[in-house]
Amino acid sequence: MVSKEIAQRLIAIVGEANFDDSKMERLVYSYDATPNLQSLPDAIISPRSTKEVSEIIKICNENKIPIVPRGSGTNLCGGTCPTNGGIVLLFKHLNKILEIDEENLTITVQPGVITLDMINTIEEKGLFYPPDPSSMKISTIGGNINENSGGLRGLKYGVTRDYVIALEIVLANGDIIRTGGKLAKDVAGYDFTRLFVGSEGTLGIITEATLKLIPMPETKKTMLALYDSLEDAARTVSKIIASKIIPTSLEFMDQPTLEVVENFAQIGLPTDVKAVLLIEQDGPQEVVNRDIELIKNICEKEKCIPVSVAKTEAEAIALRTARRSALSALAQLRPTTILEDATVPRSKIAEMVQAINEIAQKYEVKICTFGHAGDGNLHPTCPTDARDHEEMERVEMAFAEIFEKAIELGGTITGEHGVGIVKAPYLELKLGKEGIHAMLAVKTALDPHNIMNPGKVFAKDSRKRMVVSK
Amino acid sequence: MVSKEIAQRLIAIVGEANFDDSKMERLVYSYDATPNLQSLPDAIISPRSTKEVSEIIKICNENKIPIVPRGSGTNLCGGTCPTNGGIVLLFKHLNKILEIDEENLTITVQPGVITLDMINTIEEKGLFYPPDPSSMKISTIGGNINENSGGLRGLKYGVTRDYVIALEIVLANGDIIRTGGKLAKDVAGYDFTRLFVGSEGTLGIITEATLKLIPMPETKKTMLALYDSLEDAARTVSKIIASKIIPTSLEFMDQPTLEVVENFAQIGLPTDVKAVLLIEQDGPQEVVNRDIELIKNICEKEKCIPVSVAKTEAEAIALRTARRSALSALAQLRPTTILEDATVPRSKIAEMVQAINEIAQKYEVKICTFGHAGDGNLHPTCPTDARDHEEMERVEMAFAEIFEKAIELGGTITGEHGVGIVKAPYLELKLGKEGIHAMLAVKTALDPHNIMNPGKVFAKDSRKRMVVSK
Repeated sequence: MVSKEIAQRLIAIVGEANFDDSKMERLVYSYDATPNLQSLPDAIISPRSTKEVSEIIKICNENKIPIVPRGSGTNLCGGTCPTNGGIVLLFKHLNKILEIDEENLTITVQPGVITLDMINTIEEKGLFYPPDPSSMKISTIGGNINENSGGLRGLKYGVTRDYVIALEIVLANGDIIRTGGKLAKDVAGYDFTRLFVGSEGTLGIITEATLKLIPMPETKKTMLALYDSLEDAARTVSKIIASKIIPTSLEFMDQPTLEVVENFAQIGLPTDVKAVLLIEQDGPQEVVNRDIELIKNICEKEKCIPVSVAKTEAEAIALRTARRSALSALAQLRPTTILEDATVPRSKIAEMVQAINEIAQKYEVKICTFGHAGDGNLHPTCPTDARDHEEMERVEMAFAEIFEKAIELGGTITGEHGVGIVKAPYLELKLGKEGIHAMLAVKTALDPHNIMNPGKVFAKDSRKRMVVSK
Repeated sequence: MVSKEIAQRLIAIVGEANFDDSKMERLVYSYDATPNLQSLPDAIISPRSTKEVSEIIKICNENKIPIVPRGSGTNLCGGTCPTNGGIVLLFKHLNKILEIDEENLTITVQPGVITLDMINTIEEKGLFYPPDPSSMKISTIGGNINENSGGLRGLKYGVTRDYVIALEIVLANGDIIRTGGKLAKDVAGYDFTRLFVGSEGTLGIITEATLKLIPMPETKKTMLALYDSLEDAARTVSKIIASKIIPTSLEFMDQPTLEVVENFAQIGLPTDVKAVLLIEQDGPQEVVNRDIELIKNICEKEKCIPVSVAKTEAEAIALRTARRSALSALAQLRPTTILEDATVPRSKIAEMVQAINEIAQKYEVKICTFGHAGDGNLHPTCPTDARDHEEMERVEMAFAEIFEKAIELGGTITGEHGVGIVKAPYLELKLGKEGIHAMLAVKTALDPHNIMNPGKVFAKDSRKRMVVSK
């Protein structure tokens, strides 16, 4: 609870305009992009500097008030839902690009910068920041860092974690620390940079980040391969990688997803095939041409129906946009959309998609699957209705079985969306009791009063999504 | 202290042949490649399985006996010197390549595998593991992981940390945990994989690792550029990167190093220039040719005297070998060789080398500098004599000033060698009291009795190398 006295102390730090505990504002920040979760915070605060963040945290730590850092709230794991009340901390004032260093190929930003704005600024200089989460038009880079966001280019270029090289962090005790630097190599102490990336705001508040950039690839090509069989598509994925070609993107959509996406995007995608692969390669012209030709041959060998290489950039953009709109398209089908990101070694994709279909049948729920096939990161998505408790129970059971299958195949319960609230009950499947125990020891060491985004990552009990929503 | 009773319990685990507390064996493992450090362990143990490691650790944890995991002891930070006594744990039985997975491009190994053996096995399959520490002929992959080793190809390809995707770890309480997987994307909980890489054996014992592989580059080219001025060489480095070319290697040697290396390797290197750059690019033939041409132009523009591109692979190997032999060559000059790895943003290399030379003059010590210019990772190296206490004091003061300068330029006290014992007194320069405090909290959370390689990373007091050696 934020008492009147504490509210006054917080206002003294950030000013009247940057503290709000009105019912309306609390309602606005009571949920995020994750369906079916809602919980009111006590107040919303918008600090103007790292020093203010530190002062706020000291007060919260003294008084055991939870703090939930929030970018644009586009996460899909309930990561910014203030389950335990407390204060939602916004970065609307900490939204500057501080420096682009062209000699060291780095950019230094505050957490509130919108991902796509940052990417556009970088690309104007002929530089490249590869992580491209589907939410990048509205997500913030701070949110991306806290969730370790992935994207379509992860196969070749890796995820957010691979590009964060320095952080400024405010710890639970108010200490301000700096990790890393504009350095390709740094082994001075533990790798706190990577520990904090993807820690979902549970270890500290990130107030500044330096990201590694790379030269912009010269050119890129996009192609589409259609399949009558799921297995042929999956085998193509394995064969491409085993041929030692690493494309930028190797995206997969199954038939139900295709149908919905075409209906939404209207770009003439076929809807009568069992699966499509959307493949992109970038790099020097000669290499791209050669790789695309090789990939085409592999697709044809693996019985794809036709392959079409996008002839114009407009055509390529249309294909990418169609793939990126999969979630929005699926979200129009029914009131609630549950999108997960069970991930498996790429050699197991066919088996996993097959298992997802069988599980969907068993529980009589509709599951459309699309995702980043090249890195085994699938997005089984269930259009459903949260008001139908009986159906939701079946959905919950289906996803539990999907997570178990992913683990059985050597995979993980979440490839890029984070654990948050919704996957906390399943974390033990991946880490075991001992693994969770060790992570919790680290959490407790850095945040002894559990004020940093409490209720996330570590499940209190075995509550599931539908129970939380009650 | 390892009592008779504890020795018996340890022998019951590993068998007589794998436990040794003889004076001779203890002497053998009382030091590593780091000059001027020696301390006797109480015993040496060689477990045959992860289960045995876990049983050993449980006994050590109960009895507060330090454990020092050791590969080949090639580290340069005193990382495997058993300063607090206890048990040195060897991996000579845990030395198998467990699997090469060509579909998922991974290799799974036990920690005792020799780095170069692993690399050779991988390359036979047309695959590539880029980290290539100079010690790779004798170092183990477990040692590389614990120290987060770098190498000559770090500029383009990153360091060990960038290739470790899964670990099996035995924690201080004996728990066996598994992190990561054969997965490009995994955000299920904190990134313990990266936290443990480079943690110098202070958080747990790594008993298995899965590494990411990439396709072998088609071809490579090597060139040498000579300079009459240090600044011209350094500016060339910045200009190459700013031209958006990322070579595989961009190595630097100053005149004193050159002289010594040529004397040692006898391959006809010029010794009358101020600096050389050894540049290597790999990739598809067309790209390599184009990049090398562009780099040649930049070198010439920045006033390099002549550039020579190696015409044969034998010539290229000779150049690389010369560079790799820098430490061995310098080590022949005087009885003690202190090699450091202060690292700066690459735009600051000229300034840093200049500062090193001034500091060497100020303290009247000889310092030769070479290193990975492309990633700002320099190796100022001092041939000296540990028996000369007065000189050693000056060496110590010179290096302290070098570390301070590196930090001032936005750099770090160690780029790839680790903190260990010798850099622990300087760690605060980089991390501040608050940063060390936070890292120590993590250490204590995972290893409350401080049995895991104690005396490393965190300095007990402000002792320096020469004091330690007394």
